[in-house]
Amino acid sequence: MKKIEKITPQSEDFAKWYTDVIKNGDLMAYGATKGSIIFKPLSFGIWDNIRLHLDKEFKKVGVQNVYLPLLIPESLLTKEKEHLEGFNPELATVTEVGGKKLAEKYFIRPTSETLFGDFFKNEINSYNDLPLIYNQWVNVLRWEKTTNPFLRTREFLWQEGHTMHSCPKEAQKLTTKMLNIYKKFVSDYLAIPVIDGQKTEHEKFSGADFTFTIEAMMKDGKALQAGTSHYLGQNFTIPFDISFKNKENKLENAYGTSWGVSTRLLGALIMTHGDDRGIIIPPKIAPIQIDIIEMFASKEPKVHELALNIKSVLEKANFNVQIDNSDKGAGFKAANSEIHGTPLRIEIGPRDLLENRTLFVRRDTLEKFYVPISEVKTAAKNILKDIQSNLLASAQQRLVNNIVNVNNFNDFKTAIENGKWVLAAFDGDATDEVKIKELTGASTRCIPFILPITPKNNVCFYTGKKTNRYVLFAKAY
Amino acid sequence: MKKIEKITPQSEDFAKWYTDVIKNGDLMAYGATKGSIIFKPLSFGIWDNIRLHLDKEFKKVGVQNVYLPLLIPESLLTKEKEHLEGFNPELATVTEVGGKKLAEKYFIRPTSETLFGDFFKNEINSYNDLPLIYNQWVNVLRWEKTTNPFLRTREFLWQEGHTMHSCPKEAQKLTTKMLNIYKKFVSDYLAIPVIDGQKTEHEKFSGADFTFTIEAMMKDGKALQAGTSHYLGQNFTIPFDISFKNKENKLENAYGTSWGVSTRLLGALIMTHGDDRGIIIPPKIAPIQIDIIEMFASKEPKVHELALNIKSVLEKANFNVQIDNSDKGAGFKAANSEIHGTPLRIEIGPRDLLENRTLFVRRDTLEKFYVPISEVKTAAKNILKDIQSNLLASAQQRLVNNIVNVNNFNDFKTAIENGKWVLAAFDGDATDEVKIKELTGASTRCIPFILPITPKNNVCFYTGKKTNRYVLFAKAY
Repeated sequence: MKKIEKITPQSEDFAKWYTDVIKNGDLMAYGATKGSIIFKPLSFGIWDNIRLHLDKEFKKVGVQNVYLPLLIPESLLTKEKEHLEGFNPELATVTEVGGKKLAEKYFIRPTSETLFGDFFKNEINSYNDLPLIYNQWVNVLRWEKTTNPFLRTREFLWQEGHTMHSCPKEAQKLTTKMLNIYKKFVSDYLAIPVIDGQKTEHEKFSGADFTFTIEAMMKDGKALQAGTSHYLGQNFTIPFDISFKNKENKLENAYGTSWGVSTRLLGALIMTHGDDRGIIIPPKIAPIQIDIIEMFASKEPKVHELALNIKSVLEKANFNVQIDNSDKGAGFKAANSEIHGTPLRIEIGPRDLLENRTLFVRRDTLEKFYVPISEVKTAAKNILKDIQSNLLASAQQRLVNNIVNVNNFNDFKTAIENGKWVLAAFDGDATDEVKIKELTGASTRCIPFILPITPKNNVCFYTGKKTNRYVLFAKAY
Repeated sequence: MKKIEKITPQSEDFAKWYTDVIKNGDLMAYGATKGSIIFKPLSFGIWDNIRLHLDKEFKKVGVQNVYLPLLIPESLLTKEKEHLEGFNPELATVTEVGGKKLAEKYFIRPTSETLFGDFFKNEINSYNDLPLIYNQWVNVLRWEKTTNPFLRTREFLWQEGHTMHSCPKEAQKLTTKMLNIYKKFVSDYLAIPVIDGQKTEHEKFSGADFTFTIEAMMKDGKALQAGTSHYLGQNFTIPFDISFKNKENKLENAYGTSWGVSTRLLGALIMTHGDDRGIIIPPKIAPIQIDIIEMFASKEPKVHELALNIKSVLEKANFNVQIDNSDKGAGFKAANSEIHGTPLRIEIGPRDLLENRTLFVRRDTLEKFYVPISEVKTAAKNILKDIQSNLLASAQQRLVNNIVNVNNFNDFKTAIENGKWVLAAFDGDATDEVKIKELTGASTRCIPFILPITPKNNVCFYTGKKTNRYVLFAKAY
């Protein structure tokens, strides 16, 4: 068993805090390939739960899961130029097998628009075949220069949805619908509030007509893109020759969308809720929801008996429960539970046996209170529910408190330096966005669908021109 | 919507039948990379159910899911020589990124013993850290020369379990335990009976001390290895330097196992149950268990109303149900349901409305019978249960009927030519096995734990020497 090492406080060095908590919380180990990580049982358990719950939501709107190959032949990826250019520098390339050079190169998928394009071509003949609403849960590779566990790794896990429609309106409606599913899921399960909106031309997906996004605020003030949904129009269906006979019996190219969330969500979860004692996992997504800690158990075998009874009662109520009956000290066990982010811990010792009670400790507020043994089930249910909503409310509060409006570049710089998000009137173009990022480190996150705060003017903070386009800026992961 | 094409009868050309039914049954499409396939919703749905049910069994015995990287650095894979030699010719190799040559080559995992080895090394210090019982559900690549959808593809999906133990006995016990889980699952859910046993030295996994296997019999008489469980001893823990302090406080190398089943199981399922009308999916694993077919629905809107009511009743009883209310003819709809292997179809037409009844058609026996509307739920439940056990019983019967015992090489050849499995006394070595395969096409499948038939003698059919080793031979996929 590993020792618990010191965790750097968030206020001292947030990046160091992050590395400390993911290591101490047994979330990951570094892989043998640089920039890759191993998902240990706790982090993979969270991802498995994300998959489980999100997949249910997908199925409600008719999504069907499929699996397409890992490798993309060079000839296929080069069909859509903008898309290729966007991914080219990051493509891991298979050139040989068993030491022998291959006739054609293969790229490990960075995303699968081109593979789906090639697949859809043969599946679609008439408008009767549409829509096709497919999704896959897979690994993808993007050979990033700088990596950060969960947030940016060379290989990551994600789901990628790919759909085909007979008209733009239906496809665009689905683009919105999927973003809404993401927004609701991330809020309901991960307790992460987000701002939803549209990416600027400069920040949209390579190959999309437009990109919708949900943006989350980390505890250090940085933004994290938590999910995207793209309307692809006919950008892939023209080069891939995906067409159908429409109701007028004329050939028409289909209209596409794609959308995805990835294991970045684990990074978002950690940096939204974690504190100086470790990570905090929202109850609805936690692989272990309750730790039962036996205090000084060696002195009293009946403590273990009680722990088993309580575990059984809680499991019957569908909670995931774990007992710590190791011979470590009481302080170690408490810290160990906290560092792993278990939302609720229940301590029982010889004294509690006599008093017919247990000690509940909430991971979010660290509050402690006694609960009679007979009330454990009801209390656990209520507390976990309360922890879930408290985590969301705290994050929501922080989000709203840290978005400011500015009307000039000086104030913009100061706000960004102070770790704020800026919502401002902005009519600049891609060149301006590049320049602003160079000067301040901030990028456009989105043009929000609903303004999170009320801006005080309609003059662009950068160009000085009048505009009604309000854009959200922040430093981002 | 696709037309249904003619299916070649099994008796005419089994290989052609297989290709016909997987294509017509919408199970797969060929991928852009040669030797790769696309899992369409129906086949992926079956695999998803396999994962769901098998994972539950794994968790009952303490298996924890993790995720390790796709790529294996060259330096890592070369650590265990026998293992490397076994996989070397099939390794897809990444040599460049974005057109630039990499300093080290990376292999796409053909299996992950070496990655787990590198991971375990840092996780294990003392006997207190053991056992570690990990598993991952992932894609792997083996660049096979000849491929066959589901049975042998360059990329496939599987689960691979990897465990570490403090003594050989415990590791060996787990090797057996996992094989038993496979055997029970494949029998209970996929309705595939198997022979379990140990692989000969010649056929064992590259890097194992010994390999256990379950072998299934396809309808053409060929064998299919449906799952394996390997005892690795210290073969990986010595080169990877995985050691722990034992109870005597001395350093000792740990003892490993690995075990897996793959999407080959889909091929096994198709070739165990399918008939000349298409595939047959056992109810317990079927993504769609019941097709409700509206007959001549256009004439009577109340038919659709009834279909919806029945669907709702069946869904409340936890069945997966699908309605066909398309305007195709009755014959097409029935054939379409049969070709997709839905275990039960319920037909309703205007006449049935009047008679307050539905027509049940079993996919396995093709029996038809009327069921009063009020009894649909109970009847569906009973029939599906019966289909499940009937599929297993038929396959079991076929398995037992097609294993023969021989005592000389001539009879051996004849039996193999006739598509039989042979159980025979055999004391030959690897050279003999190679020779026998060359002459007859048959390989050793396993040394069965329990003899499926009673052999009549103890003289090796090949060498003529006395032996108590009884080995199962068959042609295999």
